[in-house]
Amino acid sequence: MKQVCIIGAGSSGITAAKAMKEQGISFDCFEKGSDIGGVWRFNNDNGLSSAYRSLHINTNRVVMAYSDFPMPDEYPMFPHHSHIITYFENYVDHFKLRDNITFNTTVVDVVQNPDNTYKVTLDNRQSFDYQYVIVANGHHWNPRFPNPAFKGQFTGEILHSHYYKEAEQVQNKDVLVVGIGNSAVDIACEAARLHTGKVVISTRSSAYITPNWIWSMPFDNLANPLTAKLPLWLQRTLLNVTLWLARGRQEDYGVPKPNRPVLSEHPTLSQDLLNLTGRGLIKFKPNIKEIRGKTVVFEDDTEQDFDTIIYATGYKVTFPFLKHYPAFDVEESNDIRLYKKVIHPDYKNLFFLALIQPLGAIMPLAEIQAKWIAKIIKGESKIPSKDMMLKSIEEDKQKMMKRYKQTPRHTLQVDFFTYKESIEKEMK
Amino acid sequence: MKQVCIIGAGSSGITAAKAMKEQGISFDCFEKGSDIGGVWRFNNDNGLSSAYRSLHINTNRVVMAYSDFPMPDEYPMFPHHSHIITYFENYVDHFKLRDNITFNTTVVDVVQNPDNTYKVTLDNRQSFDYQYVIVANGHHWNPRFPNPAFKGQFTGEILHSHYYKEAEQVQNKDVLVVGIGNSAVDIACEAARLHTGKVVISTRSSAYITPNWIWSMPFDNLANPLTAKLPLWLQRTLLNVTLWLARGRQEDYGVPKPNRPVLSEHPTLSQDLLNLTGRGLIKFKPNIKEIRGKTVVFEDDTEQDFDTIIYATGYKVTFPFLKHYPAFDVEESNDIRLYKKVIHPDYKNLFFLALIQPLGAIMPLAEIQAKWIAKIIKGESKIPSKDMMLKSIEEDKQKMMKRYKQTPRHTLQVDFFTYKESIEKEMK
Repeated sequence: MKQVCIIGAGSSGITAAKAMKEQGISFDCFEKGSDIGGVWRFNNDNGLSSAYRSLHINTNRVVMAYSDFPMPDEYPMFPHHSHIITYFENYVDHFKLRDNITFNTTVVDVVQNPDNTYKVTLDNRQSFDYQYVIVANGHHWNPRFPNPAFKGQFTGEILHSHYYKEAEQVQNKDVLVVGIGNSAVDIACEAARLHTGKVVISTRSSAYITPNWIWSMPFDNLANPLTAKLPLWLQRTLLNVTLWLARGRQEDYGVPKPNRPVLSEHPTLSQDLLNLTGRGLIKFKPNIKEIRGKTVVFEDDTEQDFDTIIYATGYKVTFPFLKHYPAFDVEESNDIRLYKKVIHPDYKNLFFLALIQPLGAIMPLAEIQAKWIAKIIKGESKIPSKDMMLKSIEEDKQKMMKRYKQTPRHTLQVDFFTYKESIEKEMK
Repeated sequence: MKQVCIIGAGSSGITAAKAMKEQGISFDCFEKGSDIGGVWRFNNDNGLSSAYRSLHINTNRVVMAYSDFPMPDEYPMFPHHSHIITYFENYVDHFKLRDNITFNTTVVDVVQNPDNTYKVTLDNRQSFDYQYVIVANGHHWNPRFPNPAFKGQFTGEILHSHYYKEAEQVQNKDVLVVGIGNSAVDIACEAARLHTGKVVISTRSSAYITPNWIWSMPFDNLANPLTAKLPLWLQRTLLNVTLWLARGRQEDYGVPKPNRPVLSEHPTLSQDLLNLTGRGLIKFKPNIKEIRGKTVVFEDDTEQDFDTIIYATGYKVTFPFLKHYPAFDVEESNDIRLYKKVIHPDYKNLFFLALIQPLGAIMPLAEIQAKWIAKIIKGESKIPSKDMMLKSIEEDKQKMMKRYKQTPRHTLQVDFFTYKESIEKEMK
């Protein structure tokens, strides 16, 4: 019997595999698709990738790399998905992880045994027992639509951003993009650049549009352990000043001013949206009030016809293989309550990876989570009591609730450096 | 007999028509195509437009408008060609100019009569005599290729930027764009965004990449009559500082540093090039050394294969209807020597419009040239003696030679405000 089962071989699963191997912990990793890389493999045959042809990562290559495997210097500052997948492949080959990954194999069921081991059942009907299970199945694959749905029925084409792959999908179409997150804005910009149809973004609260670059440096380099220690009001002021210097006021370009202060919402990174909006290629509307055929009525009572609505409204956090446990049925709220985002107080020996949405890159945080898990398994790191964990979860939640808007979008929000330090503390 | 013949109904021809009408000067305007707008009519049936589907003007709508006909407030700051053509149509309708324009009619010959009137022959074989001829046939329609041509023969597809209309033309192709002017960069960016092939820009001397926006204002608003009066070194310093604040150093993104100081070359306006180069989607190479089949060897002795070479190498200044006069055969050099860019000292009653390349918008300068011509025709403004004109032409040329690189690209260069004032002075 191997000690650990890792579910998924995306960017988190592979660094978990590496952490286990490094500590001499035996493991199996099961991946639904025929290769590693998860969301970063364009047209991944596991059907779960939401990457589009033009996708570049919005965190720079220095901060997003795993700690002991830098991205090559020849890589662009904001790599394309093709670079990232090559990077992951090299990581897997370098640390010789491939032999422990079983491809084309889906974990369909995970059941806790009385001795706190887990019976893992695969889609080939085989079952194996493991002492530990690491869930690394990702949280960007199960499309979330507005709930409750908007009043009325749209008779044009409806697409979730998850299924957007190529500009051809919006060519010669009047397109309404619902949402103003990173995918929403990337897709709206790509559609607008075609100059073949109208492009409208519908957003309730807008977002702070943050450039990728400032003074020829990656903008995300401004975040660092020092600025993370500043009081929130000062972080906000500094960011506001920097945003002004970098691009003036977004409302001058025609992008609505967000109705909450900066750092209260996940920022939207785009080098294009302001320019394209300023060129009249993207228009903004408030939330949808009603849909009538191909006509969309907005909350300001204006209306417009569209061929396609693209819902760039995020993803559900879903664990199909934990269907026997209501505690993990969090699709509606995305509100999974885990100690340090990794451990459920009621389920021993079950770990969750990368269920976070940092201001910064996910990969290095998944890496450190995996190292922590390896230490726990080796007995080098101790998990607090259930009560302590519940208390900590509640405290973390209160902190984030104070700062962020209460939507499914922000349940996984963490501050990169604060979170990283807290895991490092756990490991000591 | 009407007094004036205007050749062409593009953005200069129509404002010439308006200036004549305003002064009660009778005129005919002949336009090769079926409608007004010249280069700004996408797929103009006169075959002379170099507009591509995605083309936006790089000068803002306030500075580019004719003096007494502002662009609508609803227009975006940097209008699309579709906005601009509508604007021209409204201008023509508002000032009731359409009846004086004969469409689908090409002027094929202009010959000076002994009495300094001109015999104008049309492609329908009709001839008319006019006291004055205003040449407004544009200088962005006759493609210029590198001369001498590069050594060797390219066996892939060769396209001049003039014939670039749609992104489809570069889809799934490895593309080499020769040149780093505005069209070169627009096309390279559009190709790069497809993510379907490699995109390389070959440039001898690079260019200062200037954003369209700074602090949410149009960048070109920084140029004004006050800054134009500053000594060149101070203008350069201020511009360098502003460019740094707006986008840092272009070489940090991977765009070569120009080998001449700023304001010595026509700037290249782009909101996209730095970002796309920084994302690794556009690479830079020096000048072409040799071509072998589909392989291009560059002056740094690197080589790369391409499917398509796009020559974005500018245009020839050509007057097909003045073929009897060697003085106007300037295709090779673009170096036409005109007093204030309008009057040839040897040819009375012949005027040239918009043979200028300003740091700023052409339209308001064409407008003021036209007003000056109307005053000359009315006898309200006097042309200096031939000697004075020759002296002035030489002085202007020396001034521009000192500042700009001696290429066909810069023979038409003028400073917007300095030039505007000099014409206003002529009109007094």
